[in-house]
Amino acid sequence: MTKKKQNPWTPSGRPQRAGRRADFIRKTTSSAGKNGPFWIYGFHAVRAALSNPTRASIKIVATTRALSEIGAKPPENLPVEPADPEAISKLLPSGAVHQGIALLCEPLANPDLETILAKHPPGRRMVAVLDQISDPHNEGAILRSAAAFGVCAIIVQNRHAPAESGALAKSASGALDIVPRISVVNITRTLEELERMDFWRIALAGDAQSSLKEVGREGDITIVLGAEGTGIRRLVRETCDVSAAIPLSGDMASLNVSNAAAIAFYELHNLKKE
Amino acid sequence: MTKKKQNPWTPSGRPQRAGRRADFIRKTTSSAGKNGPFWIYGFHAVRAALSNPTRASIKIVATTRALSEIGAKPPENLPVEPADPEAISKLLPSGAVHQGIALLCEPLANPDLETILAKHPPGRRMVAVLDQISDPHNEGAILRSAAAFGVCAIIVQNRHAPAESGALAKSASGALDIVPRISVVNITRTLEELERMDFWRIALAGDAQSSLKEVGREGDITIVLGAEGTGIRRLVRETCDVSAAIPLSGDMASLNVSNAAAIAFYELHNLKKE
Repeated sequence: MTKKKQNPWTPSGRPQRAGRRADFIRKTTSSAGKNGPFWIYGFHAVRAALSNPTRASIKIVATTRALSEIGAKPPENLPVEPADPEAISKLLPSGAVHQGIALLCEPLANPDLETILAKHPPGRRMVAVLDQISDPHNEGAILRSAAAFGVCAIIVQNRHAPAESGALAKSASGALDIVPRISVVNITRTLEELERMDFWRIALAGDAQSSLKEVGREGDITIVLGAEGTGIRRLVRETCDVSAAIPLSGDMASLNVSNAAAIAFYELHNLKKE
Repeated sequence: MTKKKQNPWTPSGRPQRAGRRADFIRKTTSSAGKNGPFWIYGFHAVRAALSNPTRASIKIVATTRALSEIGAKPPENLPVEPADPEAISKLLPSGAVHQGIALLCEPLANPDLETILAKHPPGRRMVAVLDQISDPHNEGAILRSAAAFGVCAIIVQNRHAPAESGALAKSASGALDIVPRISVVNITRTLEELERMDFWRIALAGDAQSSLKEVGREGDITIVLGAEGTGIRRLVRETCDVSAAIPLSGDMASLNVSNAAAIAFYELHNLKKE
């Protein structure tokens, strides 16, 4: 049983319950609900997690040097265990580049789309929908680019998205704790909801006739990205207002999906500025 | 000892010496020289390797299904060993997504910059220099984007670039066998060589005052990308004609380097078209 307790941090930014497993609410529809506590590692990812008031931390394991270098001071009552790099490596997946610091924490609660969007002025908002992109490194890099180009939220499908993990957090370089990541049951239904909120919904697809430059426009925009190989599912694509491609020349039919996402965010971000 | 034999394939595309280890020339300055034969796996990567007349293949291990699906017919005298997926997995690094096919092959010979550039009309050429980018997944994704946006060549520093590997080839999705990858001893010297050939050399750096859009121009262009974290080395940056940034908004100071490369190639490719 979980008690209803959404924010384990006090307004001052200190955790109320750090030191034992925080049992705040987790929606069953959330990919975060797939797993229990997990390790976030590396400077950027740990720093961002410690700065995120909605992230419940359990403990830090770190070298003395990493602790002094990370800058962000851990909350006072969060247990800190000194350890050498080898001992930290043993806690993590093989090959994890942890830079001497790892944070055991809870997955985030699943944010609500309308609540998140209400925080940003209408007319200049961008959200990205990931249709069954399952690789945590790709999704992590997409989160990072989303933070870099002011994307308000990333929407994923709960059963076909990676669970929160150290690899996802590391690839996101902190963005997992910066960009709201909303896990939904049905992407088509969410796209319909976005239409009611007046979002212009663009499906990024290699075989589209128009380029991203041509279909971008003023106002709120949703960009939909499909999985490597299979692309966006038919029904999801048909629900969008328009399809657009990144014009490629040369000998390659498609880009890595995180590279395609970065270009799309960049282009749409530029169109908004013009 | 290696015999001097640069192309083990006949003009018809058939290997002359397949079936045993081809001992064609390998320059000692090449990163390819760091390792011996290695496995390339996955449809795109194997197909591209089989279509590359300068790639010396040793044998294929594949499921019957993968062989029929790959399309590209292996050269007649290249040994093909039928195997089940588990047996193929055992030949490869743990977790390798091989799709039922793996090709044992030699690293490529190190191409010559002037020879490669002479194949493309001057005035519209783009080359990318990677200053000590060591992650094979990042370099692989950069090669893939390079192929997608018509980049003529990727230049890497021999001692600080990943060796050719299955992971590099897989991330490149075939581009390792499409885009010439030139390994050099001294990047600064290569940049000076490019200046003599009238290339406009742009260093991509987050702290630059100008944007990529502002510094791009007609003519041949070299874009220089630095390692994640440390960026471009000072001397390399100073050798360039100009520095440029990708303007970021929001909460992230930098992009994943392959994402930054994709945006740079896209932007410069667009400038050339305009």
